[in-house]
Amino acid sequence: MSARPETPLLDRVSRPSDLKHFADAELARLAQELRAETISAVAETGGHLGAGLGVIELTVALHAIFDTPRDKIVWDVGHQSYPHKILTGRRDRIRTIRQKDGLSGFTKRSESVYDPFGAAHSSTSISAALGFSVARDLGGQCEGGLGDAVAVIGDGAISAGMAYEAMNNAGHLGKRLFVILNDNDMSIAPPVGAMSAYLSRLYAGEPFQEFKAAAKGAVSLLPGPFREGAKRAKDMLKGATVGGTLFEALGFSYVGPIDGHDMEQLLPVLRTLHQRATGPVLLHVLTKKGKGYAPAERARDRGHATARFDVGTGEQKKATSNAPSYTSVFGKALVEQAAKDDRIVAVTAAMPDGTGLNLFAERFPSRCFDVAIAEQHGVTFCAALAAGGMKPFCVVYSTFLQRGYDQVVHDVAIQRLPVRFAIDRAGLVGADGATHAGSYDIAYLANLPGFTVMAAADEAELKHMVATAAAHDDGPIAFRYPRGEGVGVEMPEQGKVLEIGKGRLIQKGKRVALLSFGTRLEEVKNAAETLAQKGVTPTIADARFAKPLDRDMILELARTHEALITLEEGAIGGFASHVAQLLAEEGVFDSGLKFRSMVLPDKFINQASPRDMYDSAAMNAEHIEAKVLDTLGITRIGSLRA
Amino acid sequence: MSARPETPLLDRVSRPSDLKHFADAELARLAQELRAETISAVAETGGHLGAGLGVIELTVALHAIFDTPRDKIVWDVGHQSYPHKILTGRRDRIRTIRQKDGLSGFTKRSESVYDPFGAAHSSTSISAALGFSVARDLGGQCEGGLGDAVAVIGDGAISAGMAYEAMNNAGHLGKRLFVILNDNDMSIAPPVGAMSAYLSRLYAGEPFQEFKAAAKGAVSLLPGPFREGAKRAKDMLKGATVGGTLFEALGFSYVGPIDGHDMEQLLPVLRTLHQRATGPVLLHVLTKKGKGYAPAERARDRGHATARFDVGTGEQKKATSNAPSYTSVFGKALVEQAAKDDRIVAVTAAMPDGTGLNLFAERFPSRCFDVAIAEQHGVTFCAALAAGGMKPFCVVYSTFLQRGYDQVVHDVAIQRLPVRFAIDRAGLVGADGATHAGSYDIAYLANLPGFTVMAAADEAELKHMVATAAAHDDGPIAFRYPRGEGVGVEMPEQGKVLEIGKGRLIQKGKRVALLSFGTRLEEVKNAAETLAQKGVTPTIADARFAKPLDRDMILELARTHEALITLEEGAIGGFASHVAQLLAEEGVFDSGLKFRSMVLPDKFINQASPRDMYDSAAMNAEHIEAKVLDTLGITRIGSLRA
Repeated sequence: MSARPETPLLDRVSRPSDLKHFADAELARLAQELRAETISAVAETGGHLGAGLGVIELTVALHAIFDTPRDKIVWDVGHQSYPHKILTGRRDRIRTIRQKDGLSGFTKRSESVYDPFGAAHSSTSISAALGFSVARDLGGQCEGGLGDAVAVIGDGAISAGMAYEAMNNAGHLGKRLFVILNDNDMSIAPPVGAMSAYLSRLYAGEPFQEFKAAAKGAVSLLPGPFREGAKRAKDMLKGATVGGTLFEALGFSYVGPIDGHDMEQLLPVLRTLHQRATGPVLLHVLTKKGKGYAPAERARDRGHATARFDVGTGEQKKATSNAPSYTSVFGKALVEQAAKDDRIVAVTAAMPDGTGLNLFAERFPSRCFDVAIAEQHGVTFCAALAAGGMKPFCVVYSTFLQRGYDQVVHDVAIQRLPVRFAIDRAGLVGADGATHAGSYDIAYLANLPGFTVMAAADEAELKHMVATAAAHDDGPIAFRYPRGEGVGVEMPEQGKVLEIGKGRLIQKGKRVALLSFGTRLEEVKNAAETLAQKGVTPTIADARFAKPLDRDMILELARTHEALITLEEGAIGGFASHVAQLLAEEGVFDSGLKFRSMVLPDKFINQASPRDMYDSAAMNAEHIEAKVLDTLGITRIGSLRA
Repeated sequence: MSARPETPLLDRVSRPSDLKHFADAELARLAQELRAETISAVAETGGHLGAGLGVIELTVALHAIFDTPRDKIVWDVGHQSYPHKILTGRRDRIRTIRQKDGLSGFTKRSESVYDPFGAAHSSTSISAALGFSVARDLGGQCEGGLGDAVAVIGDGAISAGMAYEAMNNAGHLGKRLFVILNDNDMSIAPPVGAMSAYLSRLYAGEPFQEFKAAAKGAVSLLPGPFREGAKRAKDMLKGATVGGTLFEALGFSYVGPIDGHDMEQLLPVLRTLHQRATGPVLLHVLTKKGKGYAPAERARDRGHATARFDVGTGEQKKATSNAPSYTSVFGKALVEQAAKDDRIVAVTAAMPDGTGLNLFAERFPSRCFDVAIAEQHGVTFCAALAAGGMKPFCVVYSTFLQRGYDQVVHDVAIQRLPVRFAIDRAGLVGADGATHAGSYDIAYLANLPGFTVMAAADEAELKHMVATAAAHDDGPIAFRYPRGEGVGVEMPEQGKVLEIGKGRLIQKGKRVALLSFGTRLEEVKNAAETLAQKGVTPTIADARFAKPLDRDMILELARTHEALITLEEGAIGGFASHVAQLLAEEGVFDSGLKFRSMVLPDKFINQASPRDMYDSAAMNAEHIEAKVLDTLGITRIGSLRA
């Protein structure tokens, strides 16, 4: 561990109101200390570094000028909120971030009154800030009071339709509202889309340089309702403002762009806006992701997310892995399929690396589409690609597919178009916590007519499912797989096309059948080993399909066992519900069956390791063992029954 | 019935390619005939009139200039597609529209090769058209071939984030693509939002008038890549183009606005664009909803949707109703609650009339928010209103809430914010068919931790549930109710606050318990009457809550009956799944229970009357009766058992 940095000014800050006593020059120095503290903390814990370093000065300036927690600062996504947490009374816990029982990696209402609105999924901040502004004007009361609302949103996040919807509404309502566009030309991956190109044009020209000079000299010379003073500044600002027409069309006063690392610009511009704004204002701030820490600035992802690292060298301390990640298995398997079939195309919503599509994009650049943070569009775009005779793979995290749910129903399922959904991060995901859990996709896909829904039990199965999806032209098909490493099974040379609606028997046993859908299978096998020592040899089956169900196999299991227990890494309403419906319709319950379902519990589970989270969910081997014993009545009678 | 109009030119059209033989003047006359035919047809059937009348000329011009079905015309929403259907081989069936076994009220792939992409929910057309463009460039093959793609989208629909996401992606990809902005300043309700005001500004000024003159004279004088010729036209067009900067910022060439009812503008401008476009083009066309039919033009909703009517007078032939609609009961009940509690606010996504919020908006204009077609933003906006101490009612059709699903999970449920969801059009909805069915909300809400989910069994229950939601501050709460009239029960003076998680026993019987969630209760009662004649008196209960379940009542029903049958107007994964999970966990299945669930079947059900649709779903009284008899084994053994 490196020595902690010297932070004399920061040490005097226990809450944001302490910043009111600092002179501007002290605030600038405080920012440097905050940067050092952030680097030191993330070096110790790992986590999101680049985003926070990019908004150090902005964080200090906002807390110095606005009156938090009465004024509501809504950080979009929340990756950038570590410095904010340090300034708002959480410095003593910052080195617990993203760990079990520690601080969340995002903003979170239950964590602090300074987090008025939790985040994690992108592009919600303008909607939230507008809600606070409206509540304020209607006399709403809440903890900390209700003053101004400030949304801080990145140039990547503003590409999402939701942000546009919010601006459209905010411009219409005309209420005092601050939107800070934190433009670092880099979200998790480099941003794409016409909006990104547009923003680049805004700061490519002269006006920015001129504005920068003017802002330092005559800071109150702002456009629109803030305009006054000297002719030169006016002309210059007019130039800058023309660039912001898109935002002005939506009813915002556009100000900027300004240098977000220069406190001599940030503080006076924010002060002026704070004093004079009457309607919605968009302040365009240019920042650099990873700013001020050379290893992050140099990194391809600007230090977006990092393992623990050495502050001096930037070298990350990554654990060695025994098996390939599901994501990389998927990425390679898709490339193999695509090499054989030029109808295969792939679509990602701003996550080429996270989804493993970077491999595909390198190999088949003209067949890979990053649509920006735009799941709604992405899904319908895939539907039309399918209608146009292509084989689209919509590659997305389970939790983010929620953004395109209506499009899945309306454009894909109702039209029975063969879109292939590769659903990464299914189930509990670890350090990202409850907001990123992939808990609902089984339920919300398997109840759609004509959908085929699979889950991979291990990385070899995933490879087969990629092949199966590529071959499947009869309607939409989805396959889900978790975050993290595979179980280390031998990988097949080729993915094979699975028979639709057929599961597989893993082990034949007696009395109880464990029917697993997804990667709980390993835990089931572990439980079976312990159970064997207690005289119970369960039958084990891998369902492979939640839809269509393997009716024959399931009915056979039900009829030849005293108990049937289903397992899935998803909430109620999914695989187990389909099995229960089958058993009910077939009259299997009529004469008695010890049927149980192990699904994710009815609670949101905070971040921890995936194993710990599944412990909270009571879905690890020991819980499976206990469920079997309890169901068979063995626990209760305290001994084994034949 | 009025006499059919004389349509000599239209009679010569059996497919769009026939239009290629028409001179421009004939096309203009053909448009008038098409208008008369559309009015005549909708007068006979009822349906969507205003939107179609607004695009008569555009429909003729597009089919005359583009090469359908090779070129793909994607009509956004599809309300305006009746004239298109008449021109594309469906004139003989146009008088079956929205009826059982008739034409769909929307575009539909299975209906015609001229409908390359089905619609119904708004704002999908640009994504779809982009998908076709990309597929074309990648060598995709599909029925009819793959040429150009044209999206026709209204100024209301373009307010949705999805449309913006698609433009952002289209502008980035730069492929040849046509977007026609059909700007009639009127979607289902008058459009709201900053975008709408922006579009109004675009055509408020001089440029439009000048452009109109120039377009007639020198039609090839178009901006951007189409620009050539005389200086005067250039300057004029430059003026017009400045107005379109928002679209140009997104990478489109902006052309317009032009008069969408003037074939002398439409045809030459479209021809020029068709000949010369290389990238994405947005053509801004001004139209009038209801154009050319005085009763529609005069109507508040511009003849948006109509019952059958008399062509001469425009008078609608509406059936008289016996009971108030659920929508109006909701609207009045909310006004009553809001009169007592000024924290109550209401949010709609562009459906103030359809949701009954017009009453609320009149009475409490400052507390009612129409956020435009923006369910994603609308939900998160509500979440922040709740965080700011207000009591937001998010009032939305079940099918459209799918658009805001991620926001329901991420911003409302995870933060446990007390947003009240009033879910109209739950279950099967009739003439709007499968795309508008409210099939999934029970499943996708009841599996969210902390959510309370209710369904009204009748209109009095709905009034109680409005009161219950208003009083409920412990997390989010939803209540669902169907389209159409109530059952005619006596209405209570005041809505009463229901005990959370408590159902009600309707009738005590023997052997079988029918546990209903929602308005199937009437059918259950009807079935019970017939069953009584056969010697079976079922117990009937209204669950009221899918979450939290009334565990005591359900376990009691299960333990005191041979059979338990659940009913809900929703797909698998909802109420029945929660009941089954409870029964499984409590070991009720272990010793045998004839458990059955009546849920919406695993198919999309085409439009018909709601009763007919529930017939297709096998969920009416006779089906309930049959299910009871079959479950009790009475049918099979051919006689009654004691």
